Amino acid sequence: MSTKTVTVVENIMSANDRVAQENRNQLVEQGIFAINIMASPGAGKTSVILQTIKALSKHVRIGVIEGDTAPVTIDADKIIKAGMPAIQINTGGACHLDAPMVNTALKQMPLAEIDLLIIENVGNLICPAGFKLGSHANIVVASTPEGDDKPYKYPNIYRGIEVLIINKTDLLPYIEFDMDYFQKGVKMLNPDLVSFPMSCKTGEGVDQWSQWLLSRIRRTSGNE
Amino acid sequence: MSTKTVTVVENIMSANDRVAQENRNQLVEQGIFAINIMASPGAGKTSVILQTIKALSKHVRIGVIEGDTAPVTIDADKIIKAGMPAIQINTGGACHLDAPMVNTALKQMPLAEIDLLIIENVGNLICPAGFKLGSHANIVVASTPEGDDKPYKYPNIYRGIEVLIINKTDLLPYIEFDMDYFQKGVKMLNPDLVSFPMSCKTGEGVDQWSQWLLSRIRRTSGNE
Repeated sequence: MSTKTVTVVENIMSANDRVAQENRNQLVEQGIFAINIMASPGAGKTSVILQTIKALSKHVRIGVIEGDTAPVTIDADKIIKAGMPAIQINTGGACHLDAPMVNTALKQMPLAEIDLLIIENVGNLICPAGFKLGSHANIVVASTPEGDDKPYKYPNIYRGIEVLIINKTDLLPYIEFDMDYFQKGVKMLNPDLVSFPMSCKTGEGVDQWSQWLLSRIRRTSGNE
Repeated sequence: MSTKTVTVVENIMSANDRVAQENRNQLVEQGIFAINIMASPGAGKTSVILQTIKALSKHVRIGVIEGDTAPVTIDADKIIKAGMPAIQINTGGACHLDAPMVNTALKQMPLAEIDLLIIENVGNLICPAGFKLGSHANIVVASTPEGDDKPYKYPNIYRGIEVLIINKTDLLPYIEFDMDYFQKGVKMLNPDLVSFPMSCKTGEGVDQWSQWLLSRIRRTSGNE
């Protein structure tokens, strides 16, 4: 019984990974750099995306895939208002994006017209960690009011990422958040991680993050 | 194929519901009132539990089941330090508690010595909504810095609950949070919901919530 269950799960995972690889190939062919942004609900994924658009839209063309569990277009509307193409994936209650969902969205995205694809995953610090989408880099947006113990409690999501944005630094004077304890937890799980403290309200850290992203985009398109 | 998948899912759900009913029967037999607290990571579930213990420990005996995705005892240690029995469930990475996990934890809990059982679910605003545990009431702790659009984006979790705690009201002066818009979303999904604005930092709202809880505990033990 348990052997059979494991086999089924492995098949699902490898089917997902196969489509993730197809997505990646398609992105590479078009010279697009793609990031997958994951976070708890309300950590500020959409705010980070809007700041990124503001910082980079003069330099690169950006497209956004918005993952939502419900058929509301609150986030997609904000992206479109910022002048960028946005495709919404409604997961129908499911707790994460998977590679086939992104594959479907890619068919609707004007790929020839973008250099950077930003995928906003569903707000969830657990399930998205297990599903590759085909992006070049996985990013987590942490949020200071969530507390400094999150790396210790939700380790898996921190393990497979390249960049950590620590958002809402403007709230630090009003909350208890030990940055050293937080960073110690993060480094234990993922010593090579690049992290950017940020406030989407004051703009702190947006430049540093945007410069990192721009250099990665240029490296990708230079390889083509 | 799809019919088979649906059948499997239905079987899993009804197996869970059967064990949830067993859990409920066991709680009723012992005259225990049980609540299942759900929230995003870092919304303040453990802080609400600690405030509840502080407010009610003179009146009722409390036990806590702590759900965590990782083998860390950060939250359970806080409960034990507050003088209450705490049993930790490590879900091994899984994204929600289920009734069999709670059933196992109940076997380790000194049930004859408690009146109120608090179950702290895994931090996740999606998956816990689908799994009954056998508790008498489901509670969500929302957190103001998560933003006022959460009921619109994560509707399922708001549908099956009896009480909503709106935590971190002390941060309202520093963030954009439209309480009317938030409450409108909540009432649309769940018009009978009781809600308690709260700050675990200042103590605002703790009395109102504790009085509600105390009256429900007394009604349950009175029925026995």
